[in-house]
Amino acid sequence: MSKDVKGIAASDGIGIAPAYLLVDPDLSYDKDKKISDADAEYARVETAFNDSIAELQKIKENAKGRLADEELEVFDAHIAILSDPEMLGQIKDDINNNKTSAEAAVDKVTTNFADMLAAMTDNKYMQERAADVKDVAKRAMSHLLGKQLPNIAGIDKPVVIVAKEITPSDTSQMDAKFVKGIVTDLGGRTSHAAIMSRTLRIPAVVGAEDITANAKNGQNVIVDGLHGDIIVDPSDDQVKDYQAKAEAFEKERAEWAKLVDAPSVSKDDKHFEIAANIGTPDDVEDAMKQGADGVGLFRSEFLYMGSDHLPTEDEQFEAYKKAIVGMKGKPVVVRTLDIGGDKPLDYLPLPDEMNPFLGYRAIRICLDRPEIFKTQLRALIRASEFGPLSIMFPMIGTLAELRAAKRIFEECKTELQKDHRVLGDDVKIGMMIEVPLAAINADKMAEEVDFFSIGTNDLIQYNFAADRGNDAVSYLYQPLNPAFLGLINHVIAAAHRHGTKAAMCGEMAGDELALPLLMGMGLDEYSMSASSILRTRSMMKNLDTKDCAKLVEKAMDLDTNEEVANLVKKELNLAD
Amino acid sequence: MSKDVKGIAASDGIGIAPAYLLVDPDLSYDKDKKISDADAEYARVETAFNDSIAELQKIKENAKGRLADEELEVFDAHIAILSDPEMLGQIKDDINNNKTSAEAAVDKVTTNFADMLAAMTDNKYMQERAADVKDVAKRAMSHLLGKQLPNIAGIDKPVVIVAKEITPSDTSQMDAKFVKGIVTDLGGRTSHAAIMSRTLRIPAVVGAEDITANAKNGQNVIVDGLHGDIIVDPSDDQVKDYQAKAEAFEKERAEWAKLVDAPSVSKDDKHFEIAANIGTPDDVEDAMKQGADGVGLFRSEFLYMGSDHLPTEDEQFEAYKKAIVGMKGKPVVVRTLDIGGDKPLDYLPLPDEMNPFLGYRAIRICLDRPEIFKTQLRALIRASEFGPLSIMFPMIGTLAELRAAKRIFEECKTELQKDHRVLGDDVKIGMMIEVPLAAINADKMAEEVDFFSIGTNDLIQYNFAADRGNDAVSYLYQPLNPAFLGLINHVIAAAHRHGTKAAMCGEMAGDELALPLLMGMGLDEYSMSASSILRTRSMMKNLDTKDCAKLVEKAMDLDTNEEVANLVKKELNLAD
Repeated sequence: MSKDVKGIAASDGIGIAPAYLLVDPDLSYDKDKKISDADAEYARVETAFNDSIAELQKIKENAKGRLADEELEVFDAHIAILSDPEMLGQIKDDINNNKTSAEAAVDKVTTNFADMLAAMTDNKYMQERAADVKDVAKRAMSHLLGKQLPNIAGIDKPVVIVAKEITPSDTSQMDAKFVKGIVTDLGGRTSHAAIMSRTLRIPAVVGAEDITANAKNGQNVIVDGLHGDIIVDPSDDQVKDYQAKAEAFEKERAEWAKLVDAPSVSKDDKHFEIAANIGTPDDVEDAMKQGADGVGLFRSEFLYMGSDHLPTEDEQFEAYKKAIVGMKGKPVVVRTLDIGGDKPLDYLPLPDEMNPFLGYRAIRICLDRPEIFKTQLRALIRASEFGPLSIMFPMIGTLAELRAAKRIFEECKTELQKDHRVLGDDVKIGMMIEVPLAAINADKMAEEVDFFSIGTNDLIQYNFAADRGNDAVSYLYQPLNPAFLGLINHVIAAAHRHGTKAAMCGEMAGDELALPLLMGMGLDEYSMSASSILRTRSMMKNLDTKDCAKLVEKAMDLDTNEEVANLVKKELNLAD
Repeated sequence: MSKDVKGIAASDGIGIAPAYLLVDPDLSYDKDKKISDADAEYARVETAFNDSIAELQKIKENAKGRLADEELEVFDAHIAILSDPEMLGQIKDDINNNKTSAEAAVDKVTTNFADMLAAMTDNKYMQERAADVKDVAKRAMSHLLGKQLPNIAGIDKPVVIVAKEITPSDTSQMDAKFVKGIVTDLGGRTSHAAIMSRTLRIPAVVGAEDITANAKNGQNVIVDGLHGDIIVDPSDDQVKDYQAKAEAFEKERAEWAKLVDAPSVSKDDKHFEIAANIGTPDDVEDAMKQGADGVGLFRSEFLYMGSDHLPTEDEQFEAYKKAIVGMKGKPVVVRTLDIGGDKPLDYLPLPDEMNPFLGYRAIRICLDRPEIFKTQLRALIRASEFGPLSIMFPMIGTLAELRAAKRIFEECKTELQKDHRVLGDDVKIGMMIEVPLAAINADKMAEEVDFFSIGTNDLIQYNFAADRGNDAVSYLYQPLNPAFLGLINHVIAAAHRHGTKAAMCGEMAGDELALPLLMGMGLDEYSMSASSILRTRSMMKNLDTKDCAKLVEKAMDLDTNEEVANLVKKELNLAD
């Protein structure tokens, strides 16, 4: 009997393959068991440890070429722990002296080791090793109990991954070509699993609540990332039906591909821009391949996150130049440093905060530490020589902050123009609209910038006072809530009153239900995952902005996110 | 030479007294020192431990009657640790075997003990004892080094407390009658130190940055809680000057006292309400004494925080009834449970969250756990028999949440009316305006409630995306920012368009610079610390609402919080 599970559509496409459960097996054991033959029991430990070592060696072998050397070293560290004579000695003693089972002895001794390491509060390195000991213990226990741990790095045939959630470390170990779909219990459209799936173009449904309890390893699973549907153990008819849907979707995707050089226009020939969000200069290649009209958001954090020191002006200059040159005359918008909050840096210690999303981050750090900010701005101004560049400031809340940031930009420009007269004069200056007060204050803000870029992820998070990574409040991610739409409309209208361009670079910009509403409001630029650009351009072609404007009016009269979603679905003739 | 330090005025009044530094002394010691006479060195340890025990006994004796038995037991626990033969034995061995100094041995052995306890991750009780061992070690070290630890419970003559910050545990040990003023390095107007000072009517200046570095124990300190000024080691003229100011202020306070039975009216005879924020039914007495027109915010959390179980319907009923009866016919507004975030409960485990202020809290928990919510609502409806009662829901963001909360209220009422026909029919239903989206959506929200209560602390925190407890972003606490004033104005106007009452219960309601602006916007009710009521009523009497309305217009044309503050100061003829 097939089982239908509903989740959140997170990445387009349809995938069908056997389930691969990324879920730890039950490793509980009989705690009261006493053994009689201590030697035989210790032999079980040795076998389990040796099997664990062999398994780790195999995983490492498979992962070579896909993982960085540094990441491969983790496997060596685990193998070393499994060979530690001190630990094995203690396990042997425990079995001999207390006649405990191999499972109990391994559990006790490894737990003690891990606790001891964790207690070394003055030695961060040793503390982190506690997690390695726990990982190794889990593997040894799985061998003792004859259970199989999941091993994402070992996947070598087509699967649908079924997990509670996917971590960046899972992603780094995964060979994407075998992953036909991803379904998770947790997460929303902005979770790591969702963003990664869209980037790798893997169909995905997230927030499917109890999918890990509903699917077994090897059971066939259909993932419909277009509608958020999952079917576990489908009938032959269902498989046939979805294979046809998958083909139709692939055909549609092929149609979209023809739009790669087409302009982004509505049915009534109004021109818009559809741009790409990128994370590194290397992403420019894909953005161009997907027909981006520009880069609407270049997250500059990679320069800081992937480094062991504050990136120098020259290092940054090279990266920005590479992106600008790669876009071949199409505009590039770089967001200045947005660290803090959930993006800490090892070499730049930031305070521990109770609520990092409401803390010392982004422009707040840059205004407080102008030497860091200036290095970035100087690199950007120098790179602007190579193509059209815009700079935008994240997390601006007040006019005073905006003016302070602009003042520092002007200082840098003046310094650089001593040697190079007009350098930076063409750089456009914009700000993210993501702090609620800035959205409310859009009229005054618009007077002082060339463009807005609405960061809907944060703007929704703050306006609804709901952490976008927290599942307990994920129901408050409501981009189509009429009151929120009213705020977006206010921001766009305020921008246009002052001749300022209105862009959007949050998840909402690539959301098919939001598109007609945003077009109706007159949003100028839509920046999104490169993988969504062609689909959006294709949808845009079929929408008339006058109909869209009427739709906006209707939507704002409604009361809830759900009502608006239903209205738009009806308008677009989408199935519910 | 006197030193002037500027901070944030946190509690009215002027205090002059010698400084009492609530700051740990430097307990560092020479780590390389080797000793020759081990017996003499160990004797030093014994003396230090015995002195520590004697000191703890004295502190405990002084605190009797002021602290609960449970709190006094902490001292016994500390004495027991100081008498632990195992610990003393290890210290003795370390001195004998390694010829280390008494300081090094005590430091090493107590640190080991604390780490061992902290590592017992499966035994929360033992883990918490780690902090006790550290406390005890600090005391013993202070005796070894001949330094004095601060002892807030031992204060028995007039002082000005000088601290980095004040914790609730400090407050519980403090005998308020000796505390003539409080000054702190950290904190803002909504920090614990600030709120506590206003409640206890102790002049206070917080956020004075480096005041702990600028004042020495015993130095005279003037605290001007009216203007945020601190003078360390003042001249005789300054003392005289401030004694005169203090007298003038006391005279003013005496004038205010005459207004206790007066109505809250403006110069042009417009009527308002000035109400009290209270935390327990016992606070009603003080609210009445300060002439409150009602209770505008009864925080119901004390019922949950001060208990080891979910409070029963009857327990809650008694508490609400007591408050309502105590207010003698004046209205009482009870806010339903607002836990989560920074207010966890031991018996109701909540998820660990990365950003608790953006998490599972308040109405979000109540809608998810209706059995908890219903117990409270039933108790409230039953208590409404005894006087005019209003109920308000915290953290409402969307219409769907508001409607769900109202539906549960109606369910409870229907159940109770089976036995008691009209019970609860007079209860007014309101909501906090503290989630930005609710403020934006005020027109639709107003249609569905009897009143709004603007919670400015959270509303500011979310609108500026800045944790109000985080000093690194305290510059973003800007109640007078023109864009924020615009939002408040929108909420009040929306309320009035729909015949809904507009109240405010955040810090801003008692802020003298905000008062003329809020009166100009037509805010109906101002709910604040009882200690601020009479001062506000006195100010109100001298303000004309037509002038206030003009002031609002002028303020909204400005750009920054500071500009508005200066405008209002000029209007009120206040010194800068």
